[in-house]
Amino acid sequence: MTTDLVTFGETMLRLSPPRGNRLETAETLRFSTAGAESNVAIAASRLGADTVWLSKLPSTALGRRVVTDVRRHGVTPEIVWTDANRQGAYFLEHGGDPRGTSVIYDRRDAAVTTATPDELPTEAVEDATYYYTSGITPALSDQLRETSRVLLEFAHSAGVTTVFDVNYRSKLWTPDEARTALDSLLPYIDVLVVAERDARTVFGLDGSASSIARQLDETHGFETVLVTRGDDGVVAVADGTVTEQGAFETETFDPIGTGDAFVGGYLASRIRGDALEDALEQGAATAALKRTLDGDLAVVTQQEVDRVRAQSDGGINR
Amino acid sequence: MTTDLVTFGETMLRLSPPRGNRLETAETLRFSTAGAESNVAIAASRLGADTVWLSKLPSTALGRRVVTDVRRHGVTPEIVWTDANRQGAYFLEHGGDPRGTSVIYDRRDAAVTTATPDELPTEAVEDATYYYTSGITPALSDQLRETSRVLLEFAHSAGVTTVFDVNYRSKLWTPDEARTALDSLLPYIDVLVVAERDARTVFGLDGSASSIARQLDETHGFETVLVTRGDDGVVAVADGTVTEQGAFETETFDPIGTGDAFVGGYLASRIRGDALEDALEQGAATAALKRTLDGDLAVVTQQEVDRVRAQSDGGINR
Amino acid sequence: MTTDLVTFGETMLRLSPPRGNRLETAETLRFSTAGAESNVAIAASRLGADTVWLSKLPSTALGRRVVTDVRRHGVTPEIVWTDANRQGAYFLEHGGDPRGTSVIYDRRDAAVTTATPDELPTEAVEDATYYYTSGITPALSDQLRETSRVLLEFAHSAGVTTVFDVNYRSKLWTPDEARTALDSLLPYIDVLVVAERDARTVFGLDGSASSIARQLDETHGFETVLVTRGDDGVVAVADGTVTEQGAFETETFDPIGTGDAFVGGYLASRIRGDALEDALEQGAATAALKRTLDGDLAVVTQQEVDRVRAQSDGGINR
Amino acid sequence: MTTDLVTFGETMLRLSPPRGNRLETAETLRFSTAGAESNVAIAASRLGADTVWLSKLPSTALGRRVVTDVRRHGVTPEIVWTDANRQGAYFLEHGGDPRGTSVIYDRRDAAVTTATPDELPTEAVEDATYYYTSGITPALSDQLRETSRVLLEFAHSAGVTTVFDVNYRSKLWTPDEARTALDSLLPYIDVLVVAERDARTVFGLDGSASSIARQLDETHGFETVLVTRGDDGVVAVADGTVTEQGAFETETFDPIGTGDAFVGGYLASRIRGDALEDALEQGAATAALKRTLDGDLAVVTQQEVDRVRAQSDGGINR
Amino acid sequence: MTTDLVTFGETMLRLSPPRGNRLETAETLRFSTAGAESNVAIAASRLGADTVWLSKLPSTALGRRVVTDVRRHGVTPEIVWTDANRQGAYFLEHGGDPRGTSVIYDRRDAAVTTATPDELPTEAVEDATYYYTSGITPALSDQLRETSRVLLEFAHSAGVTTVFDVNYRSKLWTPDEARTALDSLLPYIDVLVVAERDARTVFGLDGSASSIARQLDETHGFETVLVTRGDDGVVAVADGTVTEQGAFETETFDPIGTGDAFVGGYLASRIRGDALEDALEQGAATAALKRTLDGDLAVVTQQEVDRVRAQSDGGINR
Amino acid sequence: MTTDLVTFGETMLRLSPPRGNRLETAETLRFSTAGAESNVAIAASRLGADTVWLSKLPSTALGRRVVTDVRRHGVTPEIVWTDANRQGAYFLEHGGDPRGTSVIYDRRDAAVTTATPDELPTEAVEDATYYYTSGITPALSDQLRETSRVLLEFAHSAGVTTVFDVNYRSKLWTPDEARTALDSLLPYIDVLVVAERDARTVFGLDGSASSIARQLDETHGFETVLVTRGDDGVVAVADGTVTEQGAFETETFDPIGTGDAFVGGYLASRIRGDALEDALEQGAATAALKRTLDGDLAVVTQQEVDRVRAQSDGGINR
Repeated sequence: MTTDLVTFGETMLRLSPPRGNRLETAETLRFSTAGAESNVAIAASRLGADTVWLSKLPSTALGRRVVTDVRRHGVTPEIVWTDANRQGAYFLEHGGDPRGTSVIYDRRDAAVTTATPDELPTEAVEDATYYYTSGITPALSDQLRETSRVLLEFAHSAGVTTVFDVNYRSKLWTPDEARTALDSLLPYIDVLVVAERDARTVFGLDGSASSIARQLDETHGFETVLVTRGDDGVVAVADGTVTEQGAFETETFDPIGTGDAFVGGYLASRIRGDALEDALEQGAATAALKRTLDGDLAVVTQQEVDRVRAQSDGGINR
Repeated sequence: MTTDLVTFGETMLRLSPPRGNRLETAETLRFSTAGAESNVAIAASRLGADTVWLSKLPSTALGRRVVTDVRRHGVTPEIVWTDANRQGAYFLEHGGDPRGTSVIYDRRDAAVTTATPDELPTEAVEDATYYYTSGITPALSDQLRETSRVLLEFAHSAGVTTVFDVNYRSKLWTPDEARTALDSLLPYIDVLVVAERDARTVFGLDGSASSIARQLDETHGFETVLVTRGDDGVVAVADGTVTEQGAFETETFDPIGTGDAFVGGYLASRIRGDALEDALEQGAATAALKRTLDGDLAVVTQQEVDRVRAQSDGGINR
Repeated sequence: MTTDLVTFGETMLRLSPPRGNRLETAETLRFSTAGAESNVAIAASRLGADTVWLSKLPSTALGRRVVTDVRRHGVTPEIVWTDANRQGAYFLEHGGDPRGTSVIYDRRDAAVTTATPDELPTEAVEDATYYYTSGITPALSDQLRETSRVLLEFAHSAGVTTVFDVNYRSKLWTPDEARTALDSLLPYIDVLVVAERDARTVFGLDGSASSIARQLDETHGFETVLVTRGDDGVVAVADGTVTEQGAFETETFDPIGTGDAFVGGYLASRIRGDALEDALEQGAATAALKRTLDGDLAVVTQQEVDRVRAQSDGGINR
Repeated sequence: MTTDLVTFGETMLRLSPPRGNRLETAETLRFSTAGAESNVAIAASRLGADTVWLSKLPSTALGRRVVTDVRRHGVTPEIVWTDANRQGAYFLEHGGDPRGTSVIYDRRDAAVTTATPDELPTEAVEDATYYYTSGITPALSDQLRETSRVLLEFAHSAGVTTVFDVNYRSKLWTPDEARTALDSLLPYIDVLVVAERDARTVFGLDGSASSIARQLDETHGFETVLVTRGDDGVVAVADGTVTEQGAFETETFDPIGTGDAFVGGYLASRIRGDALEDALEQGAATAALKRTLDGDLAVVTQQEVDRVRAQSDGGINR
Repeated sequence: MTTDLVTFGETMLRLSPPRGNRLETAETLRFSTAGAESNVAIAASRLGADTVWLSKLPSTALGRRVVTDVRRHGVTPEIVWTDANRQGAYFLEHGGDPRGTSVIYDRRDAAVTTATPDELPTEAVEDATYYYTSGITPALSDQLRETSRVLLEFAHSAGVTTVFDVNYRSKLWTPDEARTALDSLLPYIDVLVVAERDARTVFGLDGSASSIARQLDETHGFETVLVTRGDDGVVAVADGTVTEQGAFETETFDPIGTGDAFVGGYLASRIRGDALEDALEQGAATAALKRTLDGDLAVVTQQEVDRVRAQSDGGINR
Repeated sequence: MTTDLVTFGETMLRLSPPRGNRLETAETLRFSTAGAESNVAIAASRLGADTVWLSKLPSTALGRRVVTDVRRHGVTPEIVWTDANRQGAYFLEHGGDPRGTSVIYDRRDAAVTTATPDELPTEAVEDATYYYTSGITPALSDQLRETSRVLLEFAHSAGVTTVFDVNYRSKLWTPDEARTALDSLLPYIDVLVVAERDARTVFGLDGSASSIARQLDETHGFETVLVTRGDDGVVAVADGTVTEQGAFETETFDPIGTGDAFVGGYLASRIRGDALEDALEQGAATAALKRTLDGDLAVVTQQEVDRVRAQSDGGINR
């Protein structure tokens, strides 16, 4: 049986005080789980794709929690369990301007940082149509730098379309470290997703988003390059053609996970055979819906995505 | 003893996940009750009117919950209790744009759908100054179509001023079904309230709001026609004269129940003998306040309504 | 691919006020989902069985909620979706003695009540090792009486071991109605589970639990009869031999779902090839753990079940 | 129109941290309202009596909250509103032994402490069958000592049966102060309710509960004396005859309000014409149910009370 | 040991329903504590100042709660404990426009209203660099009018820089009363903080904010005058020089305590020897951050304040 | 200035799902902080001791949270801040029998594990009357084994009375590892606290609790040995004399932190010069009160402790 999409990466506990409250004083935290690669798998799964998420987790209630949450949305977890490491987490405070949203990562020694290519159940990768991972994963440990490369190479050589989101995190590594690591992965990447800002920071590129997309495409010969631009939407270059997709207006409740929702929506569309333009639009609609929701996850339906694309006015439906 | 206002209709359980959450995943739901006719009675009661709400409820804790909530705000419930049917409910998800607010009705076989004119305690109607029901009630069952007509006719012939809000709900019936049913009620209606959009959809009217109000007035000879226009306020036609009332600006927390708050505020003002202009302004102020509140109900005071009308700046009062 | 266990039945929304509060006044309700057949599947799945749950659901957020919750614990839902019916629910008030726990069922017109054998995906049944349904299902509608019979007959003739828990509910039917319906199912049942009290009420049996078990076994020739006795444990008769298993002492947080946890634990043990005695003990341990948990579900691990069986003292493990 | 029961006294805000938490550190408080005289009226109202509660409240949202809560359960509030005083409150910490439950009263200068006989709407008292007040009311201010006496005398002389619960509170006055004040009220009291412990503390009585009841009866010539004994039930003396009623066993969630529930249940039974024995049993059943509920109020139904009296086993009813 | 800042005043309980809810119906209240003088001390303490807060409190769990909250943020409370008075409180409803935020004070007979200069531990004042109190304190009682004057005079004569925020509260006294009381304090005030609106209301001043500041400076010869202007920032006059500081843009979650945060941030900056311009900017940044937080308190860090001043974009930092 | 008590050790975040819920599924966690050494300091501080807690924390909101919580109860934190390590945490599930309470430690690489004697502010230790640390601290890292020894030796040689609670944690080390590490500390310990079970496990001792206490005393020549026995109280040996103190009966809400509450109560009593018997009784009363409270901390008052010792009946105090 082939799988539409396999992703590999870390999923963390997410712990967040109520709005207007602080980690210094809150009595309760909202508790969920999140990670770029499972976020993408969940968004795609909810929009019809058959998805698998690979990872390594501690064999505790915390590791099981991650599995429980991923399964809830139809993703099949394929897990290496270990007694030797811990479960990563992140603490999140939402704050209006000028305070801003702040994140404390607590990922050190997470079980996934020790995941080797040998122990991971790579059969799922071989049979997949798409394989996705992000630049967060190689940033987590030397082992994961190696494992990311091996899995991408493996998928690429098996004819799987590989998708990679740069997702640069300044709290995990420097631009130089990221550049060096990504250089070793780029040969195996078919679809590159990169935020315009990250393209400037990590790859040192200049110019407009479409110019950046073209430069990346020309240098590395990707199947598709997607340069995401936040409120300004996304620019795609494929076969030398530039396609632009705006962002849908949205009342943001929680911005975390927007990029992953975009990729998940995009991939679900591609998986069902939609054209690039349609996939970009679905990605943008999925991302817009995600921003209305608490948590990293795009807990959306195809019907909702379609309604956004049809420019529904967002009024009360009763 | 005469009653200022009697209303008749369904009150449902209202079940709603926390902001940013979904029915698919929420662990808790906010639990209250609501229905157009009790909403109107509650708003009017809180603003000084002596009100009665008629309905039929299941003799369970759920039916009693409805009564408890209605009484809380000074409305006297006159209830037919039954063991044979269920308590209606609706599930509500608030969502910022582009997700929008969504409603799942679960009203099938609600006790009220079987309410007959004979079993309802209609003495209260006979002695009332105003009788109010909405277009939701006849949409709920064939029996209620009949009961709505009989009660309106009964009130009308007893000299009670009858008020009817079209409140078209596309999830309950089609425009044609609504039109047919309403046609049989119109002869007994003194004051018609209709959203501009519903006037177009159900009555097939065109033109401006005031034109619509005039057409309705001319065709049916109402005492008063109120065409509500959301953010654009309301247009009234009475005695051939058009009166306009704008909407007060408001930071909306929950839009559900705005129209009912308007009608309740309007009626409380008329009941105390205010002029049409004052009643429209009080209705608009009540509606504006309601939008700052969670739930369908206008849990407001006369003092607050007066302050809005006096263009208080809404700052902190301490 | 064969499935260890397929179950078929209704899963409801479960809505419950906080401890010490009432449906008449509570502002929030705890929101989860539950149903005998999915409860059993979830308990078995968490203890290692590969399980499928069949049902019919409304294609709304409420129907999707049920699927989300079932998947979370590793059960594969196989669902017929419909736009024509509603989602069943039950309202639960926990109350200490002498108030007691009270339940309001709101299952009328639930989508599952219209499920026909033809529309259900019965391939999973054919390939299963065990098929489980309960006496609640045929109590819900005439259609389900028929569908329950057809599916049991189908499984039985396919060589699947059929398991049936009588689960008599006085709010759904009378003992006579139940008896008549069950009589038509008994020929296709291999393993009968029945509470001692239900055996008296529905089957009119007298004597001790083991005597009741023997009488049932002799009359109907089951592979196994399990007579559950609450705090007094369970009596099994298989191959003419009586086996008794006591209940583990437990501090009860929520008793709902105890019987389902027992059956799920028992079946998971049988599925992995354990002897009857071991399966009874695992069932009893699973049931004891469930009672410490809020909600119908046995959110337990094999390790916890094993610890209970090993007479762990329940102290703090740190 | 006659009223079954009129009560007069203070109703406070009740503010309570979550179980296991303290006022020193809790981030949220559970918010309700309570007072002996409204508690009694609410219990009686829920069990069928037509009741009025008299009081004086500040014309703020806090005063309105009290009215809202009282109305919810069918009691008609008759209120003198004032801008001159504050709303009383009490802070409650539930604590298991040996910590115990602790109460901080914050009743100083409550509006009700200034209530004069002249301003209170005493027409309701004149037309009542029963008039109830407690020893808390005269303990609150000199004015209330006077007002309590005048109202009792007024009711007594109008042929209303007056009921008085001693309810001694050591945080409000000394036994001597209480004794002096009560001495001036006793001539107008028909039914005296007193806890055995209070009878010893305030009246200096010795001996068994029935001996105490007899002494009180003989000294003051009451119609009925009820000596409450906590877990040991109640002893009544009427017409020289002693009647004993045990307490129903109960799993206590919140003991506050037990005595008021007893009196409310007792009075509702007497109001409908039941014999003393029946009224005592209904009082005891109401009290037992109240203890399973959070808050001061007996949010119960007649059906539940009847089930307790019929020795229902408190199991799950489904 | 010298203390950087000593403040004296009342800290109240703060009780607030959830957003969108009302005191009339809420089941829970958010529970914290707040008061102008402890708010200022807390903001300054969190930004590095060594601070003491003087007050008088009831020796109950409520008084202890205040101490607990103040200590949490590093302020040292110096308290006179009493059994004779109550703990002040305020009830707060947040409401969007046009409802506005409303406050009910319940401060009557608070322990602090009886605080005499003799009983307060004034050693801390003598050794302080700054002494702060606000116009709320003398508004609370005649005793506090006297105590405020004596403490200011004492501090002033001891060479402590005295800071006074007019903080006019129309619910506590009239402009005339305030003017009279403040007149007796002005001779001992070195730094006057006054809202532009209060300057007009209380001191009857006209003209622009800077004109008002100059007039105040010229009339009373303050070391520094700070005229706060809400969204328009603040105007300072010192040594005859006018300095303006704009307000930072902010998404307001809770406006209460903004002015206190400004003063606390300003003073912490002055205490560490910063120039007036820097202190004004730090005050404005602290105030902007406070508005993103629930509660009166500026639970901020120096790093956050510095980031606002550096015009950080408030985006997600991860 | 001398300090009554200095403690040194790790304080963790404590994250706990609501009762009856699991880490696998809970949507919210209760969030507090706890650690043996700060627990002891807090209990002692609340009962009148002047206390300092030494530790090393990450300079994030999580580290600041720990400081905030400790300060709240009057303890002065003396902290080494670092950017290099993480904040330890533990996840706690309360479960009735037979599930039991379970703990997941997540302490790896906590900042405190790198604390060296040189960087810690040991002046406070030198001036203390008592110095307390527990066997958890040396179990956390090799560095802490060394640091624990150096600090104990330092305190001991400075004439400070050193108190050590063995607090054996099987999740941190083996009995052999613990024995070896403790052997190097014992020469510097004046007061040894050890659970009877730990004495058997770690020191291999047999016999009754008093025999164990005597053996420890004779072998090591402690000033005092306290052998704690859970529900059976504590046995002390000092100067060759055995003193026994029973445990007060308690309704347990949360058992975590009982031992620390005992030690904190004991030390506060000794600090004020009480005799051993009184200190044991105060320790036992403090421990009993702690068990009625959520969280590790003994949020109690001296008045409450005294009431328990006076055998107050724990009834409602109003």
